[in-house]
Amino acid sequence: MKLSELGEFGLIDLLAGVVGAPRNGDVVVGIGDDAACWRVEDGLQLATTDSLVEDVHFSLGTTSWRDLGWKSMAVNLSDIAAMGGTPRFALVSLGLPADTDVADVEGLYRGMAELTRVFNVDIVGGDVVKAPLVMITVTLTGIGREGQILTRDAAAPGQLAAVTGNLGASAAGRVVLHNRIEMDEDTSAVLREAHFKPNPRVAEGQALARCGVEAAIDISDGLVSDLGKLCKSSGVGAKISLPQVPVHPLVAESFGSDAMRFALSGGEDYELLFTASPDTIDRVREGMLCPVTVIGDITAEPGVKVLDEAGNEVEIDAGGWDHFVSGEQC
Amino acid sequence: MKLSELGEFGLIDLLAGVVGAPRNGDVVVGIGDDAACWRVEDGLQLATTDSLVEDVHFSLGTTSWRDLGWKSMAVNLSDIAAMGGTPRFALVSLGLPADTDVADVEGLYRGMAELTRVFNVDIVGGDVVKAPLVMITVTLTGIGREGQILTRDAAAPGQLAAVTGNLGASAAGRVVLHNRIEMDEDTSAVLREAHFKPNPRVAEGQALARCGVEAAIDISDGLVSDLGKLCKSSGVGAKISLPQVPVHPLVAESFGSDAMRFALSGGEDYELLFTASPDTIDRVREGMLCPVTVIGDITAEPGVKVLDEAGNEVEIDAGGWDHFVSGEQC
Repeated sequence: MKLSELGEFGLIDLLAGVVGAPRNGDVVVGIGDDAACWRVEDGLQLATTDSLVEDVHFSLGTTSWRDLGWKSMAVNLSDIAAMGGTPRFALVSLGLPADTDVADVEGLYRGMAELTRVFNVDIVGGDVVKAPLVMITVTLTGIGREGQILTRDAAAPGQLAAVTGNLGASAAGRVVLHNRIEMDEDTSAVLREAHFKPNPRVAEGQALARCGVEAAIDISDGLVSDLGKLCKSSGVGAKISLPQVPVHPLVAESFGSDAMRFALSGGEDYELLFTASPDTIDRVREGMLCPVTVIGDITAEPGVKVLDEAGNEVEIDAGGWDHFVSGEQC
Repeated sequence: MKLSELGEFGLIDLLAGVVGAPRNGDVVVGIGDDAACWRVEDGLQLATTDSLVEDVHFSLGTTSWRDLGWKSMAVNLSDIAAMGGTPRFALVSLGLPADTDVADVEGLYRGMAELTRVFNVDIVGGDVVKAPLVMITVTLTGIGREGQILTRDAAAPGQLAAVTGNLGASAAGRVVLHNRIEMDEDTSAVLREAHFKPNPRVAEGQALARCGVEAAIDISDGLVSDLGKLCKSSGVGAKISLPQVPVHPLVAESFGSDAMRFALSGGEDYELLFTASPDTIDRVREGMLCPVTVIGDITAEPGVKVLDEAGNEVEIDAGGWDHFVSGEQC
């Protein structure tokens, strides 16, 4: 069987089977969550890794090296955020063609350093190898507190599903870039920035964990797709209500009926999707500066249903981003 | 300037400059050693990452997926070994073409699992992305004891330089494969195995650290090249004596005058190169099962000199493996 038939998530299940149950009793979270987690003397150690590949995840024709550095660090910070952790140390593995300009690589690192400075992370090592195209793998460690980490398998029926921030701007920015859509320059700049320079919700993830939230995932592949993963891990389902989905206002304004599609399955928003009781969500709201929006309910029945204003189920292209089935994502 | 002009090591220096000094006071070893190291409550945390890229580091025409899995884990285990650490948790980031056979990826993981089982390491996470060619990045964490880690910057004049095991078999195996050299099947099998399935010297690295050795590096790029890196980091030089270099006996037997070249600059032996006082080396020898061979002296004068039987300096193609300057390595 080819990977394109099995898909990314089928492959991950299969590989988790080959790897087997952890031998070290210290493992708290293994394969299949936003980050791995194991016990250390004074708490929990987190670690995550994400790769970006030229012409699969980005195109050097539309992305600057500096933004690429930012994004490759941001996606990993977002994974630590989705565990409620504090990021600490990064390792960067680069594959680069021999004719790459040194100033470009420096720019890439400057983009990473912009973000690591904000989050007090140190890049402490890595590897640089020759490759026929640009590949960037960042591995990020973090720390967490026992009993205060967010996992994908902790959602329970009766909880609400909620998200931080607004959705759809990154996908809209991607479309603006690729289709060279003519629009108001200020709007276009905001959307492109949302696409190239996502802000990982690190403080927000920590606040969720402190407030007693237990289940979360970051929205990288798309709201419906990532909610589906969270539900599958937890053995639950969800009903989300279209009118409640916080579509980014500039996207709603500029993209009409496409706006909701971007918000539901565009991906790369790097907002946090979490589930909790109404009381917990109230507590979360009090302590958080960014918007927190309830989008639906967690149900015992598996599967993710999307309901319109009248409560009727609508078919949407859940889509999201399966790395082996989908086409190019930039 | 192009990377091919600056070279891998120039680039690493430059990027270390962009990254700057660590902000976290817990960092013990940052960019430029075999692994990064930082303090945690109960000791030292180690982390390393290494990437293998199709048609740069391996060819699927000559390597099995299972051996590829072994090697991609082994090179990281070797980095933890070169710090004197105990490996613990691994994250695996894979770039794979969509038409990759699922059974091949399973084989890759089985190869990794063969080694992780031996070293009690758990693969706890990773990432799988689509890519036009196979890329494997393994990130491995480990633990160490305060005051007992091996670094590249601790060599001092007056010490001896020594290596574990024998050298040159991996490079000879590579040549046997690529040039389809006709030779005794048993010998050929040993050399190919040395190339595809290197045995990381984890127990040996820990023994070195326990015995009071402070400076070590693993031989991945080649003896002279890696000794040069160790000397440069320590601000010292070295003189090595050709007749003392432990060329693998089967390589010496089969490759005549090429044998020494393989041992000096073939690379990928994954033996440990270390420096210590004669007394310390005696202690090391007592507790170690594998051969430990003194190959020369550490000097105050910088640079690595290779001396022949008569004590005359010989010119050798220090070579080693610069990822941007060299050609293909498989």
